[in-house]
Amino acid sequence: MTNIEFSVPVTRALAEYASTKDLSGLPDEVSELARRALVDTVGVAIAARGESAVQILRGTLGIELPHGNATILVDGTRTNAMTAALLNGTAGHALDYDDVTDLIYGHPSVVLWPALLAAAEDVRATGRELLEAYVVGFEVQCAIASGMDVREHYGRGWHSTATIGVLGAAAGVARLLRLDVDATQRTLGLVASMASGSRQNFGTMTKPLHPGLAARDAVFAANLAANGFTADPDQLESPLGYFPMYSDHHHVRGVLEALEGPWALTQHGLNVKKYPCCYCTHRTADAVLDLAKSEGVRAAEVRGVHLTLEPGGFDPLIHHRPTTALQGKFSAEYVIAAALLDGKVGPTSFTDDAVRRAEAQELIRLVEFEEAAIPPVGLEDWEQAYAVVRLETDRGTLTRRVDVPHGDTRSPLNRDDLETKFRDCVEFSGTGWDAGALLAELWTFDERKPFTGFPALHPVGD
Amino acid sequence: MTNIEFSVPVTRALAEYASTKDLSGLPDEVSELARRALVDTVGVAIAARGESAVQILRGTLGIELPHGNATILVDGTRTNAMTAALLNGTAGHALDYDDVTDLIYGHPSVVLWPALLAAAEDVRATGRELLEAYVVGFEVQCAIASGMDVREHYGRGWHSTATIGVLGAAAGVARLLRLDVDATQRTLGLVASMASGSRQNFGTMTKPLHPGLAARDAVFAANLAANGFTADPDQLESPLGYFPMYSDHHHVRGVLEALEGPWALTQHGLNVKKYPCCYCTHRTADAVLDLAKSEGVRAAEVRGVHLTLEPGGFDPLIHHRPTTALQGKFSAEYVIAAALLDGKVGPTSFTDDAVRRAEAQELIRLVEFEEAAIPPVGLEDWEQAYAVVRLETDRGTLTRRVDVPHGDTRSPLNRDDLETKFRDCVEFSGTGWDAGALLAELWTFDERKPFTGFPALHPVGD
Repeated sequence: MTNIEFSVPVTRALAEYASTKDLSGLPDEVSELARRALVDTVGVAIAARGESAVQILRGTLGIELPHGNATILVDGTRTNAMTAALLNGTAGHALDYDDVTDLIYGHPSVVLWPALLAAAEDVRATGRELLEAYVVGFEVQCAIASGMDVREHYGRGWHSTATIGVLGAAAGVARLLRLDVDATQRTLGLVASMASGSRQNFGTMTKPLHPGLAARDAVFAANLAANGFTADPDQLESPLGYFPMYSDHHHVRGVLEALEGPWALTQHGLNVKKYPCCYCTHRTADAVLDLAKSEGVRAAEVRGVHLTLEPGGFDPLIHHRPTTALQGKFSAEYVIAAALLDGKVGPTSFTDDAVRRAEAQELIRLVEFEEAAIPPVGLEDWEQAYAVVRLETDRGTLTRRVDVPHGDTRSPLNRDDLETKFRDCVEFSGTGWDAGALLAELWTFDERKPFTGFPALHPVGD
Repeated sequence: MTNIEFSVPVTRALAEYASTKDLSGLPDEVSELARRALVDTVGVAIAARGESAVQILRGTLGIELPHGNATILVDGTRTNAMTAALLNGTAGHALDYDDVTDLIYGHPSVVLWPALLAAAEDVRATGRELLEAYVVGFEVQCAIASGMDVREHYGRGWHSTATIGVLGAAAGVARLLRLDVDATQRTLGLVASMASGSRQNFGTMTKPLHPGLAARDAVFAANLAANGFTADPDQLESPLGYFPMYSDHHHVRGVLEALEGPWALTQHGLNVKKYPCCYCTHRTADAVLDLAKSEGVRAAEVRGVHLTLEPGGFDPLIHHRPTTALQGKFSAEYVIAAALLDGKVGPTSFTDDAVRRAEAQELIRLVEFEEAAIPPVGLEDWEQAYAVVRLETDRGTLTRRVDVPHGDTRSPLNRDDLETKFRDCVEFSGTGWDAGALLAELWTFDERKPFTGFPALHPVGD
């Protein structure tokens, strides 16, 4: 942290990027990642229709919501942009099933899409503008992350999904509103005074509320700035601004380097969650599902389960005898049981009833686990993490090792897998919506002019 | 910061205090301070009716606001509690004319009253409950401040008015909503994930927005918690919670000591601003106004002005040649000019036109200034700050020294002074409201059951 750093005009640079960057020649690969992110984000938001966080939030906002053009994803009704962003951001994170980017230590799309969809419907932007706003928002999120020590930021307790996400989303909304550079600069300064979200609230309904608040604030700040509201034009880099406040070890020049570098979307990409549970259980789930499929293992023939993860791998998996849906999401034991019993690990696996069923509880008790620096099978070295599952059955011992989970940027889901996840989500929502029709609209959203929402999301009462 | 500290259950203690503290025997002195704070807060909010921050915010929220029972102080119309809290909190701070408490390095009432008035009107609480909620909120704000190093918190860039204020306001709203201890605990955990506000935005419209957002968030969090929304029950004291995140040197046991100690309201009190400009100009204004009154000095006879402040006294007074209303608020030179020309320093002194008038600009150019550790007249020692004003006139040199500004807790405004300020504010608002009728309602608000707002604030169109 030096005074020289403070003289790097990153607020201006980010505003110029968001307001003026020519994206007419966007590579197809980047556009396709944006479309995939939309399909995934909308799917997991729809699936959260019945979640308590969503229901209570909706109820607290009152019987009659403000009038507006922005669609609420869980029921297809419309309200104003701020309210839709709040509800959709919260719904999108309620199942912890939304995409992740390592660079920001968090979930990029669950703040971006709710803010951008709502703003686009509000101002009747084109689908293409909406797509470009997502790219801008994603790149700005990654640029912000490149200007700080995100590990330290996250380690101090900040939920970076919200605290970093809000700035990217604000930049994207500013672009959708066609703000000039000055107004975009004020948008960023304004929203920096709204960044918040504490990880101590993880495991409670307040966690999914964070991206909802961030999406709402992005819409709010850009609209205030559009109407002439003022904020410090050099907010982010200044001594009492965003970077010094939210990061003890910031290096704001990294923001400029990131903006000038290759697309963060292709460089860092999106880890899409195949299962609605802690990302640290995904390798385990892949291993068990692969054994079930390739070896035809049935739950009834399993006599014992042994799971080995890398050192620290069990840190977040604190629920060894889970009895609720939320605990099940952070239980390697239950994820194994669900994979064996259901032949898949989807939203229906994570209800209180599903976790409590007798056959799951029996399997949970069969699981033994350990951490080991050297995996018990295969190569001695590994990157990031690994899982080794050993099933003892009447037919003998069956073993699988997974280092890269399915859905990771290094092993992306194909379109079929993504659509299967989406169909599961829509089915779980109980809306009765036509998932196929919705998918067709989602994959082609950027051809719409203007973009006015998704007709297949027709209104559903409670 | 030790693990032992983390075991101090301050979230629970604060919730118990807010939810169950018996305030039936509240000393009259405390109640009177609450009433005075209400008069002052409502007055300065009404005066901000024409301020750009208020007008733009109102416009951004849309043509039609949500329906509800909570009064918007600048126009007497009603909306829902969150929206009213947002608008009133912003209006209350737009002129920087609202009360200050040293312990929190900020403005306590401008977050509390907007949140509490809106919530009380929403649930039709009694006036007495509203008064008690203010006391609870104020004491909680001071207890939070007692658990951290506020100088360091503020020094890092946090606008403590908002970041500390939001917790006190949330505690007060929880009490008004008659939440039990558990729900109040969840309210505090929830609102800790919303604390924000950067001092880098001082001098822009985002500054007054901060207390507006905090007041809104307090109402939002308490209503979410009332409906069963969850948050970490030990949020504030936990390793990733409020105190470790917002303060490098926290000492949470201080929270309990503060709650058990004497009333913070009488102990630390409220510095009421007699003038709508930087508090660091108030001693200077007192000195000039006293000379004008006691010696009959007129602006026309002043040939030179010399101002001496304590070391650092000019740090915030950066505008030596102001040309806008906002710059004038941070200009000792202009405050002196306004005092000499107007015979008072009130809201009408701080318009762009008033600052730009030729006779003011002439006087501004006559002012010389310096800082000195030893005041040029009177005792060598001083507490906190001092101002010495020397006026050169045709009649000779006239000198005044002021150490304690009028309005400080050590030299409180009497009821007449407070009412004069209030009448000035109402007149400045252009609402045409009957200040006397309003004052009568404000002084007796705690006798109302239920409290349903102030009838004298009848709706005014734009």
